[in-house]
Amino acid sequence: MKIDGVPYRTIWPVNADQAVEIIDQTRLPHEFVVVQLNTVEDAATAIRDMWVRGAPLIGATAAYGMALAMRSDCSDDGVEAAYNALIETRPTAVNLHWALGVMRDVLMPLPAERRCEVAWQRAGEIADEDVAINASIGDYGLALLKDIYEAKGKPEVLNVLTHCNAGWLATVDWGTAIAPIYKAYEAGIPVHVWVDETRPRNQGASLTAWELNHHGVPHTVIADNAGGHLMQHGLVDACIVGTDRTTATGDVCNKIGTYLKALAAHDNDVPFFVCLPSPTIDWSLQDGVREIPIEQRSAEEQSHISGKAADGTVVSVQLVPDGSPCANYAFDVTPAKYVTKLITERGYCDASADGLASLFPEHATS
Amino acid sequence: MKIDGVPYRTIWPVNADQAVEIIDQTRLPHEFVVVQLNTVEDAATAIRDMWVRGAPLIGATAAYGMALAMRSDCSDDGVEAAYNALIETRPTAVNLHWALGVMRDVLMPLPAERRCEVAWQRAGEIADEDVAINASIGDYGLALLKDIYEAKGKPEVLNVLTHCNAGWLATVDWGTAIAPIYKAYEAGIPVHVWVDETRPRNQGASLTAWELNHHGVPHTVIADNAGGHLMQHGLVDACIVGTDRTTATGDVCNKIGTYLKALAAHDNDVPFFVCLPSPTIDWSLQDGVREIPIEQRSAEEQSHISGKAADGTVVSVQLVPDGSPCANYAFDVTPAKYVTKLITERGYCDASADGLASLFPEHATS
Repeated sequence: MKIDGVPYRTIWPVNADQAVEIIDQTRLPHEFVVVQLNTVEDAATAIRDMWVRGAPLIGATAAYGMALAMRSDCSDDGVEAAYNALIETRPTAVNLHWALGVMRDVLMPLPAERRCEVAWQRAGEIADEDVAINASIGDYGLALLKDIYEAKGKPEVLNVLTHCNAGWLATVDWGTAIAPIYKAYEAGIPVHVWVDETRPRNQGASLTAWELNHHGVPHTVIADNAGGHLMQHGLVDACIVGTDRTTATGDVCNKIGTYLKALAAHDNDVPFFVCLPSPTIDWSLQDGVREIPIEQRSAEEQSHISGKAADGTVVSVQLVPDGSPCANYAFDVTPAKYVTKLITERGYCDASADGLASLFPEHATS
Repeated sequence: MKIDGVPYRTIWPVNADQAVEIIDQTRLPHEFVVVQLNTVEDAATAIRDMWVRGAPLIGATAAYGMALAMRSDCSDDGVEAAYNALIETRPTAVNLHWALGVMRDVLMPLPAERRCEVAWQRAGEIADEDVAINASIGDYGLALLKDIYEAKGKPEVLNVLTHCNAGWLATVDWGTAIAPIYKAYEAGIPVHVWVDETRPRNQGASLTAWELNHHGVPHTVIADNAGGHLMQHGLVDACIVGTDRTTATGDVCNKIGTYLKALAAHDNDVPFFVCLPSPTIDWSLQDGVREIPIEQRSAEEQSHISGKAADGTVVSVQLVPDGSPCANYAFDVTPAKYVTKLITERGYCDASADGLASLFPEHATS
């Protein structure tokens, strides 16, 4: 998407496939810094230190990391060393495993002298495929938003609420949950986004607000507490969120607090849409609340927060009093009954086993 | 309640009724500072600048402010001047109007030379009455918590979730929503409190955590987003919150985000209790969502936050990127159907017109 009028992806090759550049997302939202990655070690650092985040972008960065490695050592050992260096950076990231597996499987059968060229090509394809998936999610989501906009008589503003950051910064371009919003904006629908700040890591206030602002989409940052009130008063026409993991029955595991917004949407007849690239569906899971373990992260993410001080420096401050413990549950599960539609790259469906099976018959169990 | 073993109220007379002392709550949670108020101007500043906050404590401070004024000018003009100086400090505070009205009505009929003594006496009574009301709410709430504790077979921990600060810092002592928790703690029930941080003003993380910590009540600070997940997993035995305004039908207007927790409690069969001194009931209101206007406060409370930096100083930092607007809705309304019981100084009742009429027959219509 655009940053102040200039089109960007979150990762792109430069210098005739000698290097790639990324946005150092740890510096956002107060600084926009592009970093050049020249080696596989650079790519590993970018993933490990979360300069890049979001499953699709992590996968693309790992793929380009393999390509960077081939420039210095395209032997069998070189392929394995690059794979091993990258796979350890975020051990639980599904896309990381997937992208590295694809790259290794493509490269190993090839003669060494061909590996470098093919690696850059395949990494580019992985990035392009992500863009295509998200653009497709965006188009299907746009159709749903357009229906709402027209059913409401084309109001002056179409208010959409989102939680966390499932925007283009988490992918190579477009984003998942925000893709329909960008598509609506491009289509001339007067969309306005309520951005949940998304405590404790504040990805909404930091990243979603930043990307909407720089692309030019009207938005307002709110406390995570505010969405219910807005929905009670007709100030939300639709909610759109992403998901980290989706069960075969349509339960969605997403950033902590998503469930509360889904409850409020249900209580106020507001459509609640969940956007997902199909690889996030875990076809082995039936009951998200019981079966999906929820990661607890560092208490310091809750007790402290970073922001820009009056002198422009970014500092971390302690919010809770000395002696008060904190807990930090990273995700929650929204039962399928509170999800209006799942939006995938193949179309949208009801959040149910039947709904998902209709879009993905190859996974339907009998 | 206690601060590190020493019993305190939030306001108390000193020097044989020459002055009063308060806790400067703007310095919490990182500093505990007691301030002496010697004049009516001091009392007005304490209220205006929110060194004291919470409706009951504002009322008591105003009453003591009138008493302080009588020491320097107990003429009719002196009474009126003190009343006028104090009433302007927080124009919308109901308890402020009420306490100042009580004081003026008591003082004006008296001969001037008696006013000083009576003013100190009446201010002390207003403070004592608040303590008695809250202790009574605490006792009735304790009965409900005890029932849950026993019905669950006396578990090792009784988990209670609260939102915002309706603790002793908001009153003269005990608090409203936290009074039952203190009573349970004193009664030997192994209570543990999930403290919603309560963005954007963070009264939970700042004030509730501070007072529980210093009294010795086990607690954990969580993001406002976390409560739904905890309730889904059986980690909350009851929710207890306060209310700023209650309709005759049992709808409650409380800090933004209360409604979301009530929805989650309802979805997971967790009792949701609301504690209130009966003056917060507005007998003229029937529909809280439609009839209660919700104040929008400064966007800066959302875009910035204060905390303790590494060097110990308290600094304000900007959370959102430059150019992203914020909104700040202060309260929301929880419909009565999501409230399990209202707990008042006269007992507890269903959150309904009939329930409230059973406790307050003098207000029953028809």
